[in-house]
Amino acid sequence: MTRAEFCAFVRIHDNFVILTHRRPDGDTIGCASALCLGLRQLGKTAFVLKNEQFTPRFQPFLDGLVCETLPVDVTVISTDIASEGLLSFDAVRMDLTPVCAVDHHGSNSLACPKLVEADKAACGEIVHAILQELGVRVTKRIAECLYVAVSTDTGCFKFSNTSANTHRTAAALIEAGADVYSINKVFFDTKSFSRLRLEAKLTDTMEFYADRAVGVCVMPKSLLAEFSVTEDDLDSISGFARSIEGVKIGVMIREVEDGLGKISLRTEAPYDAAKICGLLGGGGHAAAAGASVPGGIAGAKTAILQALRDSGVTL
Amino acid sequence: MTRAEFCAFVRIHDNFVILTHRRPDGDTIGCASALCLGLRQLGKTAFVLKNEQFTPRFQPFLDGLVCETLPVDVTVISTDIASEGLLSFDAVRMDLTPVCAVDHHGSNSLACPKLVEADKAACGEIVHAILQELGVRVTKRIAECLYVAVSTDTGCFKFSNTSANTHRTAAALIEAGADVYSINKVFFDTKSFSRLRLEAKLTDTMEFYADRAVGVCVMPKSLLAEFSVTEDDLDSISGFARSIEGVKIGVMIREVEDGLGKISLRTEAPYDAAKICGLLGGGGHAAAAGASVPGGIAGAKTAILQALRDSGVTL
Repeated sequence: MTRAEFCAFVRIHDNFVILTHRRPDGDTIGCASALCLGLRQLGKTAFVLKNEQFTPRFQPFLDGLVCETLPVDVTVISTDIASEGLLSFDAVRMDLTPVCAVDHHGSNSLACPKLVEADKAACGEIVHAILQELGVRVTKRIAECLYVAVSTDTGCFKFSNTSANTHRTAAALIEAGADVYSINKVFFDTKSFSRLRLEAKLTDTMEFYADRAVGVCVMPKSLLAEFSVTEDDLDSISGFARSIEGVKIGVMIREVEDGLGKISLRTEAPYDAAKICGLLGGGGHAAAAGASVPGGIAGAKTAILQALRDSGVTL
Repeated sequence: MTRAEFCAFVRIHDNFVILTHRRPDGDTIGCASALCLGLRQLGKTAFVLKNEQFTPRFQPFLDGLVCETLPVDVTVISTDIASEGLLSFDAVRMDLTPVCAVDHHGSNSLACPKLVEADKAACGEIVHAILQELGVRVTKRIAECLYVAVSTDTGCFKFSNTSANTHRTAAALIEAGADVYSINKVFFDTKSFSRLRLEAKLTDTMEFYADRAVGVCVMPKSLLAEFSVTEDDLDSISGFARSIEGVKIGVMIREVEDGLGKISLRTEAPYDAAKICGLLGGGGHAAAAGASVPGGIAGAKTAILQALRDSGVTL
């Protein structure tokens, strides 16, 4: 769909439920909330479907927008959902799939008509453009929902996906009244003490190989329990080893259920994380990939070190 | 001076040396480098004066621009220097003061004609506007110097000074070809292992008071020596305690020379850091202030806790 077609679709319907993706992040929640508020401003009925995985720090953006049961004759749309497998557990339970989708993943495989702009860092940039095209006034609250979307999906304008359009969207949202400092403080400038203690432990137990170009850290279940670590606390923890100066290949091994060791690999060129994890039956992108292997943490460590050697890395 | 007056001043001179401030940061260095490159593009002779405190990560931006001795008939200008007391040690040694200044500090007390735009988060935003007004083509290198200025002075668009203009400047710099991802990785996404080990130690020795609203950490000299911590590693460390979820008053006590304890205080409203440090003979801003007291770390801790009590905080 083009942006104009998406807007035309929205204009002829009156009763919307918006779906967010599994393990919802700022982009899917910010987009769903902003779109919901925009549709209501146009006089339509709109809700964001409950998602049992919404975490506490996103609640302010969802306040008053969430529905638990489905209205009749509802039009189901989705924001930032790239495939059916990523529908929230609540959507799956209610047997809902979108009839129309907005997304920025080039790989989007949803079967419905969809507006996909893969050059956008965040789906929030697309929703901002849609709302303007629909003639919605971007209120302070809408601006803050969209700022959460745009800022969290780019690591506060830090990741490689950040574009001129991302910054220009942020400028427009600030001018629309978004209190971006409060949002930045919560999402980018504050860590829980549990998270800090976890990072301290990861630092103390860090292992380096290949003249410090390879860094490996491990996260047994006991560690998460000891520090009362929550899902919010673990945000981006997979990149921890890679964030150390000089490390080109960062490995995080997390102990998960069924005795599996979950490997998260972060690399910089010329190392290809997807290829390396492919040797262990996993996959992903060139810079970030993963695999799960048996034998818990010890098994995963042996496996990933061997996969690195097999990929030509001298350890 | 207005922006037009500053540009007129630049046009009638031919031979420039640009000064940076003491403990130079990305804004003073990025501005000086960008302005220097812009002036050279206009056919003028221009250099950035050596500053013994330039740190390694800024070298790429200064490459080929730095002079150690002074050309004859030189016009001395400064970027981001708010007062004579902040002139670099090299400038002081050579008895140089600027005849014209560009800055964004409202408190600028330099005696020379100056262009001060206090509504800008970074001096880099002003230099970007100046270069455009001078008809300079913003090359990839100039854009990267200005991006370093703008991004580092706003903590990658995170601090409360970040405005719509800051984001719009960043958008223009990306369109001018700046490889912002590489810069972001060095300045915002990478920590030295020394820094991480220091943070781990600070976490382990953290003390909390007042139901965790007050966090105190201490940094003895021995700690810095143990982890081979450099000045680059200490960037923004004063805000460490304050960055912990729930902490409204963050204290960092650093052991410095002559048995002094250097207190850095970071607060959020209604607590006024400048007032509290004022009780100890120090000063600063409402959100960030400091004081140095005798008796090393122990003396400083006793003093700041008493100052907090005297300010009405129940510990």
